[in-house]
Amino acid sequence: MLEQLKERVCHANLDLAVHGLVILTWGNVSAIDRESGLVVIKPSGVSYADMRPTDMVVVDLDGNVVEGELRPSSDTPTHLAIYKAFPEVGAVVHTHSTYATAWSQACLPIPNLGTTHADTFHCDIPCTEEMSHEQVAGAYEAETGSVIADAFKGMNPMHTPAVLVRHHGPFAWGKSAEDAVHNAVVLEEVARMASITLALNPKVEMNPDLVEKHYERKHGANAYYGQK
Amino acid sequence: MLEQLKERVCHANLDLAVHGLVILTWGNVSAIDRESGLVVIKPSGVSYADMRPTDMVVVDLDGNVVEGELRPSSDTPTHLAIYKAFPEVGAVVHTHSTYATAWSQACLPIPNLGTTHADTFHCDIPCTEEMSHEQVAGAYEAETGSVIADAFKGMNPMHTPAVLVRHHGPFAWGKSAEDAVHNAVVLEEVARMASITLALNPKVEMNPDLVEKHYERKHGANAYYGQK
Amino acid sequence: MLEQLKERVCHANLDLAVHGLVILTWGNVSAIDRESGLVVIKPSGVSYADMRPTDMVVVDLDGNVVEGELRPSSDTPTHLAIYKAFPEVGAVVHTHSTYATAWSQACLPIPNLGTTHADTFHCDIPCTEEMSHEQVAGAYEAETGSVIADAFKGMNPMHTPAVLVRHHGPFAWGKSAEDAVHNAVVLEEVARMASITLALNPKVEMNPDLVEKHYERKHGANAYYGQK
Amino acid sequence: MLEQLKERVCHANLDLAVHGLVILTWGNVSAIDRESGLVVIKPSGVSYADMRPTDMVVVDLDGNVVEGELRPSSDTPTHLAIYKAFPEVGAVVHTHSTYATAWSQACLPIPNLGTTHADTFHCDIPCTEEMSHEQVAGAYEAETGSVIADAFKGMNPMHTPAVLVRHHGPFAWGKSAEDAVHNAVVLEEVARMASITLALNPKVEMNPDLVEKHYERKHGANAYYGQK
Repeated sequence: MLEQLKERVCHANLDLAVHGLVILTWGNVSAIDRESGLVVIKPSGVSYADMRPTDMVVVDLDGNVVEGELRPSSDTPTHLAIYKAFPEVGAVVHTHSTYATAWSQACLPIPNLGTTHADTFHCDIPCTEEMSHEQVAGAYEAETGSVIADAFKGMNPMHTPAVLVRHHGPFAWGKSAEDAVHNAVVLEEVARMASITLALNPKVEMNPDLVEKHYERKHGANAYYGQK
Repeated sequence: MLEQLKERVCHANLDLAVHGLVILTWGNVSAIDRESGLVVIKPSGVSYADMRPTDMVVVDLDGNVVEGELRPSSDTPTHLAIYKAFPEVGAVVHTHSTYATAWSQACLPIPNLGTTHADTFHCDIPCTEEMSHEQVAGAYEAETGSVIADAFKGMNPMHTPAVLVRHHGPFAWGKSAEDAVHNAVVLEEVARMASITLALNPKVEMNPDLVEKHYERKHGANAYYGQK
Repeated sequence: MLEQLKERVCHANLDLAVHGLVILTWGNVSAIDRESGLVVIKPSGVSYADMRPTDMVVVDLDGNVVEGELRPSSDTPTHLAIYKAFPEVGAVVHTHSTYATAWSQACLPIPNLGTTHADTFHCDIPCTEEMSHEQVAGAYEAETGSVIADAFKGMNPMHTPAVLVRHHGPFAWGKSAEDAVHNAVVLEEVARMASITLALNPKVEMNPDLVEKHYERKHGANAYYGQK
Repeated sequence: MLEQLKERVCHANLDLAVHGLVILTWGNVSAIDRESGLVVIKPSGVSYADMRPTDMVVVDLDGNVVEGELRPSSDTPTHLAIYKAFPEVGAVVHTHSTYATAWSQACLPIPNLGTTHADTFHCDIPCTEEMSHEQVAGAYEAETGSVIADAFKGMNPMHTPAVLVRHHGPFAWGKSAEDAVHNAVVLEEVARMASITLALNPKVEMNPDLVEKHYERKHGANAYYGQK
């Protein structure tokens, strides 16, 4: 079932380690087959060295395991909430990458301070609101998805495909598993650059014309970056 | 004698270098066989490139060498004091990993600022008190074990399995050598994340509900993280 | 056409990744054949793993593609503007290397704080002025070349062969592709050293005698560094 | 001539790159044969990839080349001044390693903030005084050796075997080439730890008892660290 998607999801999980975004077993990637509504996701707490495509777990959008011997990632309900809230998302990545996690712990959005950010993310990377006692005590992982959806009210999640979960760490997404990993890589780099930038000049402000220009030249109707 | 434990301790010492926690010959791992009360520990000042399981030294809880050609690590009395003070500890790791050592030198506990910390460590990582002139001049390494035990008064050392020795560096522990190395890896990463977080926002405060939730979902009676 | 130059430009692009200056497909190198006025440049958005000398694109100084199947880098007009403004430049490198980009985002020149800087760069690395709404909306990449040229009024671009484009990132150049990559490597290192230096001592001032001495001993008429 | 010393000096130079202390061709190691008064040193500006023992240059203490096809390092007069001022030194290392260079650029000594420092360096790592216009304009590299010697007035250079040359970078030394490289590695690590420590707590003070204890247990008459 969904063998090709399992291979891509497995490979994307391994790529997180290659890009230096995860240590130990931290981090997980999932992808959705929108036709069947089925999601392929990494099993929980399995080491990267041993992970194979056949270890991937298939769940439906209600979180029922449809195929797979292992438990799905404990973050599965957050992934599912993102797929339900953002219909264009094809894949989701969660990591505890160092700088993006530090911004999450600092409870601050990552400001758009340069064209590196603007090339991939149209706006600041939002940080979710504080979760209530009831949200944490209840269906915690699904509620994490709720506060992510809330953070994108009035924003296009495909134009700024990442979020910081307050006190926790980043989620990124994209059209495909490869795209979501790409966005997670860029997120960590802009998080790192922003922290260095603000240490050098805490009052810097971005030129809004450049934000539009760089986002448009890569993603707009007349995009001219890359091979068309 | 204890051949399997020697292999695991040797391997755990080499793993410290793989994880980037030690340079040169800094760092040492030991493990205890609780039945016999014997401890297997790295020899002092031997290079990682040359280290073999047969180089490991076996000592009793009073520090007498029971087997081995080489001198045990000069930190052996600190390891032994930890085994005596915390009966559930199966292995101890000492490193001078960069960020955890910087916090030790700053004489500050590492605050629990996010779920990365809370997933492994229930509380802030304590920093030991200043040692007296007599403690330093006396049985210094054993006294280091005393101030570590003092730092855990009223705390469960298995729920927060690491400490910062003031002006010196970190010790971590666990049920097994592998577990202790895992905790030392997480310690260094949370030390690094905390330093970046506080540079971004010196006034941040963690949500205590999240501390309980994350510690419980991994280590509580109803833990649901990983493969059960 | 220009087969040897294509090989050197391709190799120089790959070297950016070896030196840790680029992630993903960020960064590009070009070189000019001054006799024919033709420029060899990296194609846009092609992965480093797949890049071959035959993928390099040949353009003239007006930006017309003279040879090549792929689109040239979207930054091509900036490269061309640099070749036109600075007639001694033989090759240009653009990266988003972390620290040099952070200084660009901070809108600050990199001050000459030590002999590591002075050995390669005579002056502070200038940061370009804010671009106007018209410049961004117009021929943006060529205008980026204009503000670079403006930043070197009264300065010798071969004595300080690098610039920070405000809110964006660094360009470096040299006599050859190898020389330009060398300068980009030094730029990133002095950017990193300067950020650490100013965190330690925000008021430090360089000794101007050392600036002259170090620049002269490597690049002056009586240079005595290296093999003759 | 001095074939074995050439091999060790060549290997020590290559080790600087292995330990991440140098990029490009920055950095050089020399060693002295005290019996003959001859010094073996790296040639100037030669790439690490191509360097062989037979490339090493032999000079006398007046700087005359006694053997070798290539020019000796341009820093040779500084190395020679150190051998002449400190008779117990057997080898000298110069690098532009990132953090030690940042402290040099900040014009600050590296304070002894922990046992990692005290295990190798008894005191703070001194930073040399400002060089006069005449010193820079004159025999600059030899004068650099003079200000290094001045920085150790009243200090034992074998107990604190490193120095920061103001606005420039570190020199380290030891009994042998291997020992000098070891000290350069420790120097960079304590420079990095000290910068992180002071960012966390600018007012921290070291316990002087620990300084003595750690230095003595490794280097004192009753040293008990390592295999005896």
